[in-house]
Amino acid sequence: MTDILISEVGPRDGLQSVARVMPLAAKQAWIAAEAAAGVREIEVGSFVPASLLPQMADTPALVAFARTIAGLAVAVLVPNLRGAQAAIAAGAHKISIPFSMSETHSLRNVRRDHAAMLAEIAAIAALVSAEPAETRPQFEVGLSTAFGCTIEGHVAEDAVVRLADAAIAAGATEVGLSDTSGYADPAQVRRLVRRVKAAVGPHRLNSLHLHNTRGLGLANALAGLDEGITTLDASLGGLGGCPFAPGASGNIVTEDLAFMLAAMGYTTGIDLDRLIAVRAIVAAALPGEPMYGFIADAGVPLGLAARSA
Amino acid sequence: MTDILISEVGPRDGLQSVARVMPLAAKQAWIAAEAAAGVREIEVGSFVPASLLPQMADTPALVAFARTIAGLAVAVLVPNLRGAQAAIAAGAHKISIPFSMSETHSLRNVRRDHAAMLAEIAAIAALVSAEPAETRPQFEVGLSTAFGCTIEGHVAEDAVVRLADAAIAAGATEVGLSDTSGYADPAQVRRLVRRVKAAVGPHRLNSLHLHNTRGLGLANALAGLDEGITTLDASLGGLGGCPFAPGASGNIVTEDLAFMLAAMGYTTGIDLDRLIAVRAIVAAALPGEPMYGFIADAGVPLGLAARSA
Repeated sequence: MTDILISEVGPRDGLQSVARVMPLAAKQAWIAAEAAAGVREIEVGSFVPASLLPQMADTPALVAFARTIAGLAVAVLVPNLRGAQAAIAAGAHKISIPFSMSETHSLRNVRRDHAAMLAEIAAIAALVSAEPAETRPQFEVGLSTAFGCTIEGHVAEDAVVRLADAAIAAGATEVGLSDTSGYADPAQVRRLVRRVKAAVGPHRLNSLHLHNTRGLGLANALAGLDEGITTLDASLGGLGGCPFAPGASGNIVTEDLAFMLAAMGYTTGIDLDRLIAVRAIVAAALPGEPMYGFIADAGVPLGLAARSA
Repeated sequence: MTDILISEVGPRDGLQSVARVMPLAAKQAWIAAEAAAGVREIEVGSFVPASLLPQMADTPALVAFARTIAGLAVAVLVPNLRGAQAAIAAGAHKISIPFSMSETHSLRNVRRDHAAMLAEIAAIAALVSAEPAETRPQFEVGLSTAFGCTIEGHVAEDAVVRLADAAIAAGATEVGLSDTSGYADPAQVRRLVRRVKAAVGPHRLNSLHLHNTRGLGLANALAGLDEGITTLDASLGGLGGCPFAPGASGNIVTEDLAFMLAAMGYTTGIDLDRLIAVRAIVAAALPGEPMYGFIADAGVPLGLAARSA
């Protein structure tokens, strides 16, 4: 029985592409309910200027709230050093910075080329390592557009491997592979996970961030599991996506992923019925917003427990 | 580059759960367009009493039409010996009979227990083998509810292995595994494919019939490919399901499957753009009927060709 960490990114990646601002109290109720359902890591927001993303303006308050939940790892996204400073000041347990493998995407998204991004990563790594060991956050670099880019198209695997290595050399604790554009296929996931693990060391790549834009999200997750991936990002109800990659909406659905893992005999710590019940909190706070996924409607198979017994 | 056969089952399994009868001319246009898009096998209908399924009343005419398309394998479903006689008279290239691993499901569906089904399979096998070699159809037994049943729940893998072996012993050319209820998970697919192949011989199990009821359809297909499965059933637009298994609607989507296989470097002979264009024929003939799938809306990734090059 392998233990898999599902990292809920709905309050960040999901809400990022929802125009209407979800009230702080609703976000808190969502986070508390998912943690109570057994989700052990939640990306609660991002430290970006509130003028750019008003939806994320309450991230400091959410980090403070989420830190009061025992056993919950509180993750945030930061676009740069300034965001990392704010994240550390707020007390986040995990800091992720997206590093786009497509330089065109990087320039459009954060106006930095690869060299400037690596300098930013090094500066954040220095900041993080200056923290006392007991409060030092985990620092992950998310290799975004690793499977292709809606602007550049194909992204060379050699480039991803080289930039993953450069991010670790710059001081990141670990790297993750992100299918920002929903372009990945299972064969590519297997190849790239294998190659990046070989380049940076097997314990420096543990996580995948997958979108279900083209329906292959869970097949890609399976491919990652086969290659030793132990952390999978997902969003409750499949909410959200990347506002900078047109047409590339839709994280994989937390509930469906949790079902697949449970059916396969992986442990996640998640109570599926309680997780599915959390959808009502999000739906009530964002009426009319589409929510995706199959298991919530279809229900858990009769006799599932007997299968893995 | 492994070649994978996508067997289109929409005109049979898809339409089976659609109340409104699709006109013969529309079915012919659908079948012709999919064959022209490169689909090499189509299950065009089933030989059941027209009083039970009026949607399937034109199956003899469809077989005759589909036989005129060069290179197309014309498959049909039959519930019993009488259906098989009609299928052979019509000139079907492939005959499949569903054999439910859940005896309760079998009794409710066709009013036969396992012993009676095996006798029926033996009678069909005798009929088939009496045909001259050059016109003898392929005779497959579809092991339905192999991954679980909405009535019985868990179905023991030992029973599936034993009944698969019995079906081959009764004279079937091959068996296929069917996830009638949409209950399968990838670990179970791998285990069961491996166990049935070991029991009946690797070339006696080549195909999977998967539903996407709980969102795991393509992940389950991937698991099957990993175990040497070379034929995958799918339905254009994910149309249909099993009317006898409540809530278990939804075959995997042909277009999304064809995309996944192409992206992974498998050959299928299918032109994805032409396949996607076939949706318009079905949508025009069945206005208001829901059509599923992602790739038709999201579009093929930019630079896909460079990926596998």
